[in-house]
Amino acid sequence: METNRTDFAGWMQARQRDIEAVLEAILPDPGRSPARLHEAMRYAVLGGGKRVRPLLAYAAGEAARAERARVDRVAAAVELVHAYSLVHDDLPCMDDDVLRRGRPTCHVAYDEATALLAGDALQSLAFDVLAGQALCVNPAEQVEMIALLACAIGSRGMAGGQAIDLASTGQELSLPELENMHIHKTGELIRASVVLGARCGDCDGGSAAALDRFARCAGLAFQVVDDVLDAESDSETLGKTAGKDARQNKATYVSIMGAAQARRFAEDLRVDALQALLPFGAEAARLRELIDFIVLRRH
Amino acid sequence: METNRTDFAGWMQARQRDIEAVLEAILPDPGRSPARLHEAMRYAVLGGGKRVRPLLAYAAGEAARAERARVDRVAAAVELVHAYSLVHDDLPCMDDDVLRRGRPTCHVAYDEATALLAGDALQSLAFDVLAGQALCVNPAEQVEMIALLACAIGSRGMAGGQAIDLASTGQELSLPELENMHIHKTGELIRASVVLGARCGDCDGGSAAALDRFARCAGLAFQVVDDVLDAESDSETLGKTAGKDARQNKATYVSIMGAAQARRFAEDLRVDALQALLPFGAEAARLRELIDFIVLRRH
Repeated sequence: METNRTDFAGWMQARQRDIEAVLEAILPDPGRSPARLHEAMRYAVLGGGKRVRPLLAYAAGEAARAERARVDRVAAAVELVHAYSLVHDDLPCMDDDVLRRGRPTCHVAYDEATALLAGDALQSLAFDVLAGQALCVNPAEQVEMIALLACAIGSRGMAGGQAIDLASTGQELSLPELENMHIHKTGELIRASVVLGARCGDCDGGSAAALDRFARCAGLAFQVVDDVLDAESDSETLGKTAGKDARQNKATYVSIMGAAQARRFAEDLRVDALQALLPFGAEAARLRELIDFIVLRRH
Repeated sequence: METNRTDFAGWMQARQRDIEAVLEAILPDPGRSPARLHEAMRYAVLGGGKRVRPLLAYAAGEAARAERARVDRVAAAVELVHAYSLVHDDLPCMDDDVLRRGRPTCHVAYDEATALLAGDALQSLAFDVLAGQALCVNPAEQVEMIALLACAIGSRGMAGGQAIDLASTGQELSLPELENMHIHKTGELIRASVVLGARCGDCDGGSAAALDRFARCAGLAFQVVDDVLDAESDSETLGKTAGKDARQNKATYVSIMGAAQARRFAEDLRVDALQALLPFGAEAARLRELIDFIVLRRH
Protein backbone atom coordinates (compact mmCIF):
# COMPACT_ATOMS: atom_id res chain seq x y z
CA MET A 1 0.00 0.00 0.00
CA GLU A 2 2.81 2.39 0.97
CA THR A 3 4.60 1.50 -2.26
CA ASN A 4 1.44 2.14 -4.21
CA ARG A 5 0.93 5.50 -2.58
CA THR A 6 4.47 6.62 -3.36
CA ASP A 7 3.94 5.31 -6.83
CA PHE A 8 0.77 7.36 -7.20
CA ALA A 9 2.41 10.53 -5.87
CA GLY A 10 5.19 10.07 -8.42
CA TRP A 11 2.69 9.44 -11.21
CA MET A 12 0.69 12.50 -10.25
CA GLN A 13 3.74 14.75 -10.15
CA ALA A 14 4.92 13.42 -13.51
CA ARG A 15 1.55 14.09 -15.12
CA GLN A 16 1.36 17.53 -13.51
CA ARG A 17 4.76 18.33 -15.03
CA ASP A 18 3.59 16.92 -18.38
CA ILE A 19 0.43 19.00 -18.54
CA GLU A 20 2.36 22.12 -17.50
CA ALA A 21 4.74 21.59 -20.43
CA VAL A 22 1.87 20.86 -22.82
CA LEU A 23 -0.04 23.98 -21.74
CA GLU A 24 3.15 26.05 -21.90
CA ALA A 25 3.63 24.97 -25.52
CA ILE A 26 -0.02 25.44 -26.50
CA LEU A 27 -0.55 28.87 -24.96
CA PRO A 28 0.35 31.79 -27.22
CA ASP A 29 3.84 33.25 -26.96
CA PRO A 30 3.74 36.25 -24.59
CA GLY A 31 6.09 38.06 -26.98
CA ARG A 32 3.49 38.02 -29.76
CA SER A 33 0.84 40.68 -30.18
CA PRO A 34 -1.52 41.24 -28.40
CA ALA A 35 1.09 40.72 -25.68
CA ARG A 36 -0.97 41.78 -22.67
CA LEU A 37 -3.79 39.40 -23.60
CA HIS A 38 -1.34 36.55 -24.14
CA GLU A 39 0.34 37.26 -20.81
CA ALA A 40 -3.02 37.26 -19.04
CA MET A 41 -3.97 33.93 -20.65
CA ARG A 42 -0.69 32.38 -19.51
CA TYR A 43 -1.06 33.88 -16.04
CA ALA A 44 -4.52 32.36 -15.72
CA VAL A 45 -3.42 28.88 -16.78
CA LEU A 46 0.23 28.28 -15.85
CA GLY A 47 1.97 27.72 -12.55
CA GLY A 48 -0.76 26.55 -10.28
CA GLY A 49 -3.73 24.36 -9.62
CA LYS A 50 -4.02 20.70 -8.78
CA ARG A 51 -4.77 19.86 -12.43
CA VAL A 52 -7.50 17.45 -11.31
CA ARG A 53 -9.20 17.46 -14.71
CA PRO A 54 -6.02 16.67 -16.69
CA LEU A 55 -5.16 13.96 -14.12
CA LEU A 56 -8.57 12.40 -14.67
CA ALA A 57 -8.09 12.56 -18.43
CA TYR A 58 -4.65 10.93 -18.16
CA ALA A 59 -5.91 8.22 -15.80
CA ALA A 60 -8.89 7.47 -18.05
CA GLY A 61 -6.57 7.45 -21.06
CA GLU A 62 -4.41 4.82 -19.32
CA ALA A 63 -7.52 2.76 -18.56
CA ALA A 64 -8.34 2.83 -22.30
CA ARG A 65 -4.70 2.31 -23.37
CA ALA A 66 -4.77 5.59 -25.28
CA GLU A 67 -1.81 7.16 -27.05
CA ARG A 68 -0.26 9.73 -24.72
CA ALA A 69 0.08 12.56 -27.25
CA ARG A 70 -3.65 12.44 -27.86
CA VAL A 71 -4.55 12.50 -24.19
CA ASP A 72 -2.18 15.46 -23.78
CA ARG A 73 -4.46 17.49 -26.04
CA VAL A 74 -7.66 16.45 -24.31
CA ALA A 75 -6.09 17.14 -20.91
CA ALA A 76 -5.01 20.59 -22.09
CA ALA A 77 -8.43 21.40 -23.54
CA VAL A 78 -10.30 20.62 -20.32
CA GLU A 79 -7.78 22.57 -18.23
CA LEU A 80 -8.03 25.58 -20.57
CA VAL A 81 -11.80 25.51 -20.13
CA HIS A 82 -11.42 25.20 -16.36
CA ALA A 83 -9.01 28.16 -16.28
CA TYR A 84 -11.35 30.28 -18.43
CA SER A 85 -14.26 29.51 -16.09
CA LEU A 86 -12.21 30.55 -13.04
CA VAL A 87 -11.16 33.84 -14.64
CA HIS A 88 -14.76 34.75 -15.46
CA ASP A 89 -16.06 33.42 -12.13
CA ASP A 90 -13.64 35.67 -10.22
CA LEU A 91 -14.74 38.86 -12.05
CA PRO A 92 -16.40 41.63 -9.99
CA CYS A 93 -19.80 41.00 -11.59
CA MET A 94 -19.59 37.33 -10.53
CA ASP A 95 -17.83 36.23 -7.31
CA ASP A 96 -15.63 39.35 -7.14
CA ASP A 97 -12.68 37.41 -5.79
CA VAL A 98 -9.11 38.64 -5.42
CA LEU A 99 -7.21 35.43 -4.58
CA ARG A 100 -6.80 32.30 -6.71
CA ARG A 101 -4.12 29.61 -6.54
CA GLY A 102 -2.34 31.72 -3.94
CA ARG A 103 -2.01 34.74 -6.26
CA PRO A 104 -4.08 37.78 -7.26
CA THR A 105 -6.92 36.82 -9.60
CA CYS A 106 -6.47 37.62 -13.29
CA HIS A 107 -8.52 40.83 -13.31
CA VAL A 108 -6.59 42.09 -10.27
CA ALA A 109 -3.21 41.28 -11.83
CA TYR A 110 -4.29 42.77 -15.19
CA ASP A 111 -7.64 44.51 -15.56
CA GLU A 112 -11.26 43.48 -15.99
CA ALA A 113 -11.44 43.88 -19.75
CA THR A 114 -8.25 41.89 -20.29
CA ALA A 115 -9.48 39.15 -17.94
CA LEU A 116 -12.79 38.99 -19.80
CA LEU A 117 -11.03 38.61 -23.16
CA ALA A 118 -8.47 36.17 -21.73
CA GLY A 119 -11.31 33.91 -20.60
CA ASP A 120 -13.02 34.22 -23.97
CA ALA A 121 -9.82 33.40 -25.84
CA LEU A 122 -9.03 30.46 -23.55
CA GLN A 123 -12.39 28.92 -24.44
CA SER A 124 -11.64 29.29 -28.16
CA LEU A 125 -8.17 27.86 -27.61
CA ALA A 126 -9.65 24.75 -25.99
CA PHE A 127 -11.60 24.01 -29.17
CA ASP A 128 -8.59 24.86 -31.31
CA VAL A 129 -6.60 22.28 -29.33
CA LEU A 130 -9.28 19.60 -29.77
CA ALA A 131 -9.68 20.26 -33.50
CA GLY A 132 -6.09 21.17 -34.43
CA GLN A 133 -4.73 17.61 -34.72
CA ALA A 134 -6.04 14.07 -34.98
CA LEU A 135 -7.34 12.74 -31.65
CA CYS A 136 -8.53 9.34 -32.75
CA VAL A 137 -8.26 7.08 -35.77
CA ASN A 138 -11.73 8.05 -36.93
CA PRO A 139 -12.25 11.80 -37.51
CA ALA A 140 -16.02 11.35 -37.08
CA GLU A 141 -15.29 10.36 -33.49
CA GLN A 142 -13.18 13.46 -33.04
CA VAL A 143 -16.16 15.58 -34.14
CA GLU A 144 -18.26 13.79 -31.52
CA MET A 145 -15.65 14.54 -28.85
CA ILE A 146 -15.70 18.24 -29.74
CA ALA A 147 -19.51 18.25 -29.52
CA LEU A 148 -19.27 16.50 -26.15
CA LEU A 149 -17.03 19.23 -24.72
CA ALA A 150 -19.16 22.03 -26.22
CA CYS A 151 -22.26 20.53 -24.67
CA ALA A 152 -20.59 19.93 -21.29
CA ILE A 153 -19.56 23.56 -20.89
CA GLY A 154 -22.54 25.39 -22.43
CA SER A 155 -25.84 26.60 -21.02
CA ARG A 156 -26.95 23.05 -20.22
CA GLY A 157 -23.57 22.31 -18.67
CA MET A 158 -20.91 24.35 -16.87
CA ALA A 159 -22.12 27.87 -17.83
CA GLY A 160 -25.66 26.80 -16.90
CA GLY A 161 -24.41 25.59 -13.53
CA GLN A 162 -22.84 28.98 -12.89
CA ALA A 163 -26.15 30.63 -13.75
CA ILE A 164 -28.00 28.33 -11.32
CA ASP A 165 -25.36 29.19 -8.71
CA LEU A 166 -25.95 32.93 -9.27
CA ALA A 167 -29.70 32.52 -8.97
CA SER A 168 -29.27 30.46 -5.80
CA THR A 169 -27.17 32.92 -3.79
CA GLY A 170 -29.09 33.86 -0.68
CA GLN A 171 -31.77 31.24 -1.42
CA GLU A 172 -32.63 28.15 0.60
CA LEU A 173 -31.75 25.14 -1.56
CA SER A 174 -32.91 21.59 -1.13
CA LEU A 175 -30.33 18.84 -1.46
CA PRO A 176 -31.57 17.85 -4.95
CA GLU A 177 -31.38 21.50 -6.05
CA LEU A 178 -27.83 21.80 -4.74
CA GLU A 179 -26.88 18.56 -6.44
CA ASN A 180 -28.40 19.77 -9.72
CA MET A 181 -26.31 22.93 -9.54
CA HIS A 182 -23.07 21.05 -8.96
CA ILE A 183 -23.75 18.38 -11.56
CA HIS A 184 -23.76 21.24 -14.05
CA LYS A 185 -21.27 23.70 -12.58
CA THR A 186 -18.38 21.30 -11.96
CA GLY A 187 -19.66 17.80 -12.70
CA GLU A 188 -20.10 18.08 -16.46
CA LEU A 189 -16.52 19.20 -17.13
CA ILE A 190 -15.09 16.54 -14.82
CA ARG A 191 -17.21 13.97 -16.61
CA ALA A 192 -15.98 15.27 -19.97
CA SER A 193 -12.37 14.99 -18.74
CA VAL A 194 -12.79 11.29 -18.01
CA VAL A 195 -14.85 10.43 -21.08
CA LEU A 196 -12.64 12.37 -23.52
CA GLY A 197 -9.49 10.84 -22.03
CA ALA A 198 -10.95 7.36 -22.51
CA ARG A 199 -12.14 8.10 -26.03
CA CYS A 200 -8.56 8.77 -27.10
CA GLY A 201 -8.06 5.02 -26.70
CA ASP A 202 -10.00 1.79 -27.07
CA CYS A 203 -13.20 1.99 -25.12
CA ASP A 204 -16.23 -0.18 -25.85
CA GLY A 205 -19.76 0.80 -24.91
CA GLY A 206 -19.75 -1.08 -21.60
CA SER A 207 -16.46 0.43 -20.46
CA ALA A 208 -17.60 3.89 -21.53
CA ALA A 209 -20.75 3.56 -19.43
CA ALA A 210 -18.73 2.37 -16.42
CA LEU A 211 -16.30 5.28 -16.77
CA ASP A 212 -19.19 7.68 -17.10
CA ARG A 213 -20.64 6.39 -13.81
CA PHE A 214 -17.23 6.73 -12.19
CA ALA A 215 -16.93 10.29 -13.48
CA ARG A 216 -20.33 11.33 -12.14
CA CYS A 217 -19.42 10.09 -8.66
CA ALA A 218 -15.96 11.68 -8.86
CA GLY A 219 -17.37 15.04 -9.96
CA LEU A 220 -19.89 15.19 -7.15
CA ALA A 221 -17.39 13.93 -4.56
CA PHE A 222 -14.95 16.63 -5.66
CA GLN A 223 -17.57 19.31 -4.99
CA VAL A 224 -18.69 17.89 -1.63
CA VAL A 225 -15.07 17.85 -0.45
CA ASP A 226 -14.59 21.39 -1.82
CA ASP A 227 -17.48 22.56 0.34
CA VAL A 228 -16.03 20.87 3.42
CA LEU A 229 -12.60 22.42 2.81
CA ASP A 230 -14.09 25.86 2.19
CA ALA A 231 -15.84 25.64 5.56
CA GLU A 232 -12.95 24.11 7.52
CA SER A 233 -9.70 25.39 5.98
CA ASP A 234 -7.95 28.75 5.84
CA SER A 235 -7.14 30.76 2.70
CA GLU A 236 -3.43 30.05 2.93
CA THR A 237 -3.92 26.28 2.84
CA LEU A 238 -6.49 26.51 0.02
CA GLY A 239 -4.67 29.13 -2.09
CA LYS A 240 -8.06 30.78 -2.58
CA THR A 241 -10.42 32.71 -0.34
CA ALA A 242 -11.75 30.35 2.35
CA GLY A 243 -15.08 30.62 4.15
CA LYS A 244 -16.50 32.38 1.09
CA ASP A 245 -19.60 30.20 0.80
CA ALA A 246 -20.81 31.02 4.30
CA ARG A 247 -20.09 34.75 3.92
CA GLN A 248 -21.93 34.84 0.60
CA ASN A 249 -24.77 32.92 2.22
CA LYS A 250 -24.43 30.16 -0.36
CA ALA A 251 -26.05 26.79 0.12
CA THR A 252 -23.38 24.07 0.36
CA TYR A 253 -23.27 20.44 1.37
CA VAL A 254 -21.95 21.64 4.72
CA SER A 255 -24.73 24.21 5.24
CA ILE A 256 -27.41 21.67 4.33
CA MET A 257 -26.13 18.46 5.94
CA GLY A 258 -23.30 19.55 8.25
CA ALA A 259 -19.59 18.81 7.82
CA ALA A 260 -19.60 15.32 9.34
CA GLN A 261 -22.47 14.14 7.17
CA ALA A 262 -20.92 15.79 4.10
CA ARG A 263 -17.68 13.87 4.72
CA ARG A 264 -19.69 10.62 4.98
CA PHE A 265 -21.47 11.48 1.71
CA ALA A 266 -18.11 12.02 -0.02
CA GLU A 267 -16.97 8.64 1.30
CA ASP A 268 -20.14 6.97 -0.08
CA LEU A 269 -19.44 8.55 -3.46
CA ARG A 270 -15.87 7.26 -3.31
CA VAL A 271 -17.16 3.73 -2.74
CA ASP A 272 -19.65 4.10 -5.62
CA ALA A 273 -16.90 5.38 -7.90
CA LEU A 274 -14.66 2.41 -7.05
CA GLN A 275 -17.56 0.05 -7.65
CA ALA A 276 -18.08 1.53 -11.11
CA LEU A 277 -14.49 0.51 -11.89
CA LEU A 278 -15.03 -3.19 -10.98
CA PRO A 279 -15.14 -4.29 -14.64
CA PHE A 280 -11.59 -2.93 -15.04
CA GLY A 281 -8.33 -4.51 -13.99
CA ALA A 282 -4.96 -2.96 -13.26
CA GLU A 283 -5.32 -0.51 -16.14
CA ALA A 284 -7.75 1.52 -13.99
CA ALA A 285 -5.35 1.73 -11.03
CA ARG A 286 -4.75 5.45 -11.47
CA LEU A 287 -8.47 6.19 -11.57
CA ARG A 288 -8.90 4.31 -8.29
CA GLU A 289 -6.04 6.22 -6.71
CA LEU A 290 -7.37 9.51 -8.04
CA ILE A 291 -10.78 9.14 -6.42
CA ASP A 292 -8.99 8.44 -3.13
CA PHE A 293 -6.91 11.57 -3.67
CA ILE A 294 -10.00 13.68 -4.49
CA VAL A 295 -11.90 12.58 -1.39
CA LEU A 296 -9.01 12.48 1.07
CA ARG A 297 -7.22 15.71 0.01
CA ARG A 298 -6.68 18.56 2.48
CA HIS A 299 -6.72 21.45 -0.04
CA MET B 1 -30.15 45.98 -62.96
CA GLU B 2 -33.38 47.05 -61.23
CA THR B 3 -34.66 43.48 -61.49
CA ASN B 4 -31.40 42.20 -60.06
CA ARG B 5 -31.58 44.59 -57.16
CA THR B 6 -35.15 43.57 -56.31
CA ASP B 7 -34.04 40.00 -56.69
CA PHE B 8 -31.18 40.55 -54.24
CA ALA B 9 -33.43 42.30 -51.73
CA GLY B 10 -35.78 39.32 -51.90
CA TRP B 11 -32.91 36.86 -51.54
CA MET B 12 -31.53 38.78 -48.58
CA GLN B 13 -34.87 38.91 -46.81
CA ALA B 14 -35.43 35.21 -47.41
CA ARG B 15 -32.01 34.29 -45.99
CA GLN B 16 -32.55 36.64 -43.03
CA ARG B 17 -35.82 34.83 -42.32
CA ASP B 18 -34.05 31.47 -42.73
CA ILE B 19 -31.26 32.26 -40.29
CA GLU B 20 -33.74 33.65 -37.78
CA ALA B 21 -35.64 30.34 -37.87
CA VAL B 22 -32.44 28.31 -37.66
CA LEU B 23 -31.17 30.33 -34.67
CA GLU B 24 -34.59 30.16 -33.02
CA ALA B 25 -34.46 26.35 -33.27
CA ILE B 26 -30.84 26.07 -32.14
CA LEU B 27 -31.03 28.39 -29.13
CA PRO B 28 -32.08 26.71 -25.89
CA ASP B 29 -35.76 26.75 -24.97
CA PRO B 30 -36.41 29.71 -22.63
CA GLY B 31 -38.69 27.45 -20.61
CA ARG B 32 -35.82 25.15 -19.66
CA SER B 33 -33.56 25.73 -16.68
CA PRO B 34 -31.55 27.92 -16.30
CA ALA B 35 -34.36 30.04 -17.74
CA ARG B 36 -32.85 33.49 -17.18
CA LEU B 37 -29.61 32.50 -18.92
CA HIS B 38 -31.52 30.98 -21.83
CA GLU B 39 -33.69 34.09 -22.14
CA ALA B 40 -30.59 36.31 -22.17
CA MET B 41 -28.96 34.17 -24.86
CA ARG B 42 -32.08 34.43 -27.02
CA TYR B 43 -32.37 38.16 -26.37
CA ALA B 44 -28.77 38.67 -27.51
CA VAL B 45 -29.20 36.70 -30.73
CA LEU B 46 -32.79 36.91 -31.98
CA GLY B 47 -34.81 39.72 -33.52
CA GLY B 48 -32.22 42.06 -34.87
CA GLY B 49 -29.06 42.68 -36.78
CA LYS B 50 -28.33 42.70 -40.48
CA ARG B 51 -27.01 39.12 -40.32
CA VAL B 52 -24.11 40.08 -42.58
CA ARG B 53 -22.03 37.06 -41.56
CA PRO B 54 -24.79 34.51 -42.23
CA LEU B 55 -25.55 36.26 -45.54
CA LEU B 56 -21.89 35.89 -46.51
CA ALA B 57 -21.94 32.22 -45.51
CA TYR B 58 -25.09 31.61 -47.56
CA ALA B 59 -23.73 33.48 -50.58
CA ALA B 60 -20.41 31.60 -50.40
CA GLY B 61 -22.33 28.35 -49.98
CA GLU B 62 -24.25 29.13 -53.20
CA ALA B 63 -20.98 29.87 -54.98
CA ALA B 64 -19.76 26.41 -53.93
CA ARG B 65 -23.12 24.71 -54.61
CA ALA B 66 -23.32 23.60 -50.98
CA GLU B 67 -26.24 21.79 -49.42
CA ARG B 68 -28.44 24.38 -47.70
CA ALA B 69 -28.90 22.51 -44.40
CA ARG B 70 -25.14 22.46 -43.91
CA VAL B 71 -24.71 26.14 -44.62
CA ASP B 72 -27.52 26.83 -42.15
CA ARG B 73 -25.33 25.44 -39.38
CA VAL B 74 -22.25 27.37 -40.42
CA ALA B 75 -24.29 30.56 -40.74
CA ALA B 76 -25.75 30.01 -37.28
CA ALA B 77 -22.35 29.31 -35.74
CA VAL B 78 -20.76 32.52 -37.02
CA GLU B 79 -23.78 34.58 -35.95
CA LEU B 80 -23.72 33.03 -32.47
CA VAL B 81 -20.05 34.00 -32.19
CA HIS B 82 -20.83 37.51 -33.42
CA ALA B 83 -23.65 37.87 -30.88
CA TYR B 84 -21.42 36.62 -28.05
CA SER B 85 -18.74 39.15 -28.98
CA LEU B 86 -21.26 42.00 -28.97
CA VAL B 87 -22.61 41.02 -25.54
CA HIS B 88 -19.13 40.98 -24.03
CA ASP B 89 -18.04 44.09 -25.95
CA ASP B 90 -20.97 46.06 -24.52
CA LEU B 91 -20.17 45.17 -20.88
CA PRO B 92 -19.22 48.02 -18.51
CA CYS B 93 -15.58 46.87 -18.32
CA MET B 94 -15.36 47.04 -22.13
CA ASP B 95 -17.31 49.63 -24.18
CA ASP B 96 -19.96 50.15 -21.48
CA ASP B 97 -22.72 50.57 -24.01
CA VAL B 98 -26.47 50.64 -23.36
CA LEU B 99 -27.93 50.48 -26.88
CA ARG B 100 -27.60 47.70 -29.43
CA ARG B 101 -29.83 46.86 -32.38
CA GLY B 102 -32.23 49.56 -31.16
CA ARG B 103 -32.72 47.91 -27.77
CA PRO B 104 -31.05 47.94 -24.34
CA THR B 105 -27.84 45.89 -24.37
CA CYS B 106 -27.93 42.44 -22.78
CA HIS B 107 -26.41 43.45 -19.42
CA VAL B 108 -28.88 46.36 -19.17
CA ALA B 109 -31.88 44.17 -19.99
CA TYR B 110 -30.65 41.41 -17.63
CA ASP B 111 -27.57 41.96 -15.46
CA GLU B 112 -23.81 41.85 -15.92
CA ALA B 113 -23.25 38.35 -14.59
CA THR B 114 -26.02 36.92 -16.77
CA ALA B 115 -24.67 38.76 -19.83
CA LEU B 116 -21.17 37.43 -19.14
CA LEU B 117 -22.46 33.85 -18.91
CA ALA B 118 -24.76 34.29 -21.92
CA GLY B 119 -21.75 35.32 -24.02
CA ASP B 120 -19.73 32.40 -22.72
CA ALA B 121 -22.52 29.93 -23.45
CA LEU B 122 -23.12 31.38 -26.93
CA GLN B 123 -19.49 30.70 -27.80
CA SER B 124 -19.82 27.07 -26.64
CA LEU B 125 -23.08 26.76 -28.57
CA ALA B 126 -21.35 27.87 -31.78
CA PHE B 127 -18.94 24.93 -31.50
CA ASP B 128 -21.77 22.61 -30.53
CA VAL B 129 -23.57 23.64 -33.73
CA LEU B 130 -20.49 23.04 -35.88
CA ALA B 131 -19.75 19.66 -34.30
CA GLY B 132 -23.28 18.43 -33.64
CA GLN B 133 -24.04 17.16 -37.16
CA ALA B 134 -22.22 16.33 -40.36
CA LEU B 135 -21.13 19.44 -42.27
CA CYS B 136 -19.33 17.81 -45.17
CA VAL B 137 -18.89 14.37 -46.63
CA ASN B 138 -15.48 13.98 -45.02
CA PRO B 139 -15.46 14.33 -41.20
CA ALA B 140 -11.73 15.21 -41.28
CA GLU B 141 -12.72 18.34 -43.18
CA GLN B 142 -15.33 19.13 -40.54
CA VAL B 143 -12.60 18.98 -37.88
CA GLU B 144 -10.58 21.45 -39.97
CA MET B 145 -13.58 23.78 -40.21
CA ILE B 146 -13.97 23.74 -36.42
CA ALA B 147 -10.27 24.53 -36.01
CA LEU B 148 -10.64 27.35 -38.53
CA LEU B 149 -13.42 28.99 -36.50
CA ALA B 150 -11.59 28.48 -33.20
CA CYS B 151 -8.49 30.11 -34.65
CA ALA B 152 -10.45 32.99 -36.23
CA ILE B 153 -12.05 34.01 -32.95
CA GLY B 154 -9.23 33.38 -30.46
CA SER B 155 -6.34 35.49 -29.23
CA ARG B 156 -4.80 35.67 -32.70
CA GLY B 157 -8.21 36.49 -34.20
CA MET B 158 -11.34 38.26 -32.98
CA ALA B 159 -10.56 38.31 -29.23
CA GLY B 160 -7.05 39.49 -30.05
CA GLY B 161 -8.49 42.30 -32.17
CA GLN B 162 -10.63 43.40 -29.23
CA ALA B 163 -7.52 43.45 -27.04
CA ILE B 164 -5.67 45.56 -29.62
CA ASP B 165 -8.70 47.86 -29.72
CA LEU B 166 -8.62 48.24 -25.92
CA ALA B 167 -4.92 49.02 -25.95
CA SER B 168 -5.42 51.57 -28.74
CA THR B 169 -8.09 53.71 -27.10
CA GLY B 170 -6.72 57.21 -26.71
CA GLN B 171 -3.61 56.34 -28.76
CA GLU B 172 -2.53 57.73 -32.10
CA LEU B 173 -2.67 54.84 -34.57
CA SER B 174 -1.04 54.64 -37.97
CA LEU B 175 -3.11 53.33 -40.85
CA PRO B 176 -1.31 49.93 -40.82
CA GLU B 177 -1.94 49.64 -37.06
CA LEU B 178 -5.62 50.46 -37.51
CA GLU B 179 -5.87 47.95 -40.34
CA ASN B 180 -4.14 45.29 -38.22
CA MET B 181 -6.71 45.84 -35.45
CA HIS B 182 -9.68 45.49 -37.80
CA ILE B 183 -8.27 42.51 -39.67
CA HIS B 184 -8.39 40.74 -36.32
CA LYS B 185 -11.40 42.31 -34.60
CA THR B 186 -13.95 41.94 -37.40
CA GLY B 187 -12.05 40.66 -40.44
CA GLU B 188 -11.22 37.16 -39.22
CA LEU B 189 -14.83 36.22 -38.41
CA ILE B 190 -16.10 37.66 -41.70
CA ARG B 191 -13.42 35.67 -43.49
CA ALA B 192 -14.42 32.54 -41.59
CA SER B 193 -18.07 33.12 -42.58
CA VAL B 194 -17.19 33.06 -46.28
CA VAL B 195 -14.65 30.23 -46.11
CA LEU B 196 -16.83 27.98 -43.94
CA GLY B 197 -19.87 28.59 -46.14
CA ALA B 198 -17.84 27.60 -49.21
CA ARG B 199 -16.36 24.54 -47.51
CA CYS B 200 -19.86 23.12 -47.03
CA GLY B 201 -19.84 22.59 -50.82
CA ASP B 202 -17.38 21.83 -53.59
CA CYS B 203 -14.50 24.23 -53.50
CA ASP B 204 -11.12 23.50 -55.04
CA GLY B 205 -7.91 25.17 -53.89
CA GLY B 206 -8.04 27.96 -56.48
CA SER B 207 -11.64 28.87 -55.69
CA ALA B 208 -10.91 28.77 -51.97
CA ALA B 209 -8.02 31.21 -52.40
CA ALA B 210 -10.17 33.54 -54.51
CA LEU B 211 -12.96 33.48 -51.93
CA ASP B 212 -10.46 34.12 -49.18
CA ARG B 213 -9.22 37.21 -51.02
CA PHE B 214 -12.81 38.34 -51.52
CA ALA B 215 -13.50 37.83 -47.81
CA ARG B 216 -10.47 39.87 -46.71
CA CYS B 217 -11.61 42.81 -48.85
CA ALA B 218 -15.22 42.45 -47.69
CA GLY B 219 -14.21 42.35 -44.01
CA LEU B 220 -12.10 45.46 -44.24
CA ALA B 221 -14.68 47.30 -46.38
CA PHE B 222 -17.34 46.47 -43.80
CA GLN B 223 -15.27 48.11 -41.07
CA VAL B 224 -14.36 51.19 -43.10
CA VAL B 225 -18.05 51.78 -43.86
CA ASP B 226 -18.89 51.17 -40.19
CA ASP B 227 -16.49 53.95 -39.21
CA VAL B 228 -18.03 56.33 -41.75
CA LEU B 229 -21.55 55.55 -40.54
CA ASP B 230 -20.54 55.93 -36.88
CA ALA B 231 -19.22 59.40 -37.70
CA GLU B 232 -22.06 60.51 -39.98
CA SER B 233 -25.27 58.82 -38.77
CA ASP B 234 -27.47 59.18 -35.71
CA SER B 235 -28.19 56.47 -33.13
CA GLU B 236 -31.75 55.95 -34.31
CA THR B 237 -30.68 55.12 -37.85
CA LEU B 238 -27.87 52.85 -36.66
CA GLY B 239 -29.79 51.12 -33.85
CA LYS B 240 -26.66 51.52 -31.74
CA THR B 241 -24.90 54.45 -30.12
CA ALA B 242 -23.56 56.73 -32.89
CA GLY B 243 -20.56 59.04 -32.68
CA LYS B 244 -19.07 56.72 -30.06
CA ASP B 245 -15.65 56.41 -31.71
CA ALA B 246 -15.00 60.16 -31.63
CA ARG B 247 -16.23 60.49 -28.03
CA GLN B 248 -14.04 57.57 -26.94
CA ASN B 249 -11.16 59.16 -28.82
CA LYS B 250 -10.74 56.01 -30.92
CA ALA B 251 -8.70 55.96 -34.06
CA THR B 252 -10.93 55.18 -37.06
CA TYR B 253 -10.61 55.36 -40.82
CA VAL B 254 -12.49 58.65 -40.61
CA SER B 255 -10.22 60.12 -37.93
CA ILE B 256 -7.09 59.10 -39.83
CA MET B 257 -8.05 59.75 -43.47
CA GLY B 258 -11.26 61.78 -43.29
CA ALA B 259 -14.76 60.65 -44.35
CA ALA B 260 -14.40 61.34 -48.08
CA GLN B 261 -11.13 59.42 -48.37
CA ALA B 262 -12.54 56.59 -46.22
CA ARG B 263 -15.49 56.27 -48.60
CA ARG B 264 -13.07 56.12 -51.53
CA PHE B 265 -11.05 53.43 -49.74
CA ALA B 266 -14.22 51.38 -49.21
CA GLU B 267 -14.98 51.73 -52.92
CA ASP B 268 -11.46 50.51 -53.82
CA LEU B 269 -11.97 47.49 -51.57
CA ARG B 270 -15.30 46.79 -53.27
CA VAL B 271 -13.56 46.79 -56.67
CA ASP B 272 -10.83 44.47 -55.31
CA ALA B 273 -13.46 42.14 -53.86
CA LEU B 274 -15.29 41.97 -57.20
CA GLN B 275 -12.01 41.30 -58.99
CA ALA B 276 -11.32 38.37 -56.67
CA LEU B 277 -14.59 36.85 -57.90
CA LEU B 278 -13.61 36.99 -61.60
CA PRO B 279 -12.90 33.22 -61.80
CA PHE B 280 -16.52 32.60 -60.81
CA GLY B 281 -19.62 32.77 -62.97
CA ALA B 282 -23.24 33.33 -62.07
CA GLU B 283 -22.93 31.13 -58.99
CA ALA B 284 -21.11 34.03 -57.25
CA ALA B 285 -23.84 36.58 -58.05
CA ARG B 286 -24.94 36.86 -54.42
CA LEU B 287 -21.40 37.49 -53.23
CA ARG B 288 -21.08 40.32 -55.78
CA GLU B 289 -24.38 41.82 -54.66
CA LEU B 290 -23.41 41.47 -51.01
CA ILE B 291 -20.20 43.45 -51.35
CA ASP B 292 -22.25 46.21 -53.01
CA PHE B 293 -24.69 46.06 -50.12
CA ILE B 294 -21.89 46.19 -47.51
CA VAL B 295 -20.23 49.22 -49.08
CA LEU B 296 -23.36 51.15 -50.11
CA ARG B 297 -25.48 50.56 -46.97
CA ARG B 298 -26.75 53.47 -44.89
CA HIS B 299 -26.85 51.71 -41.48
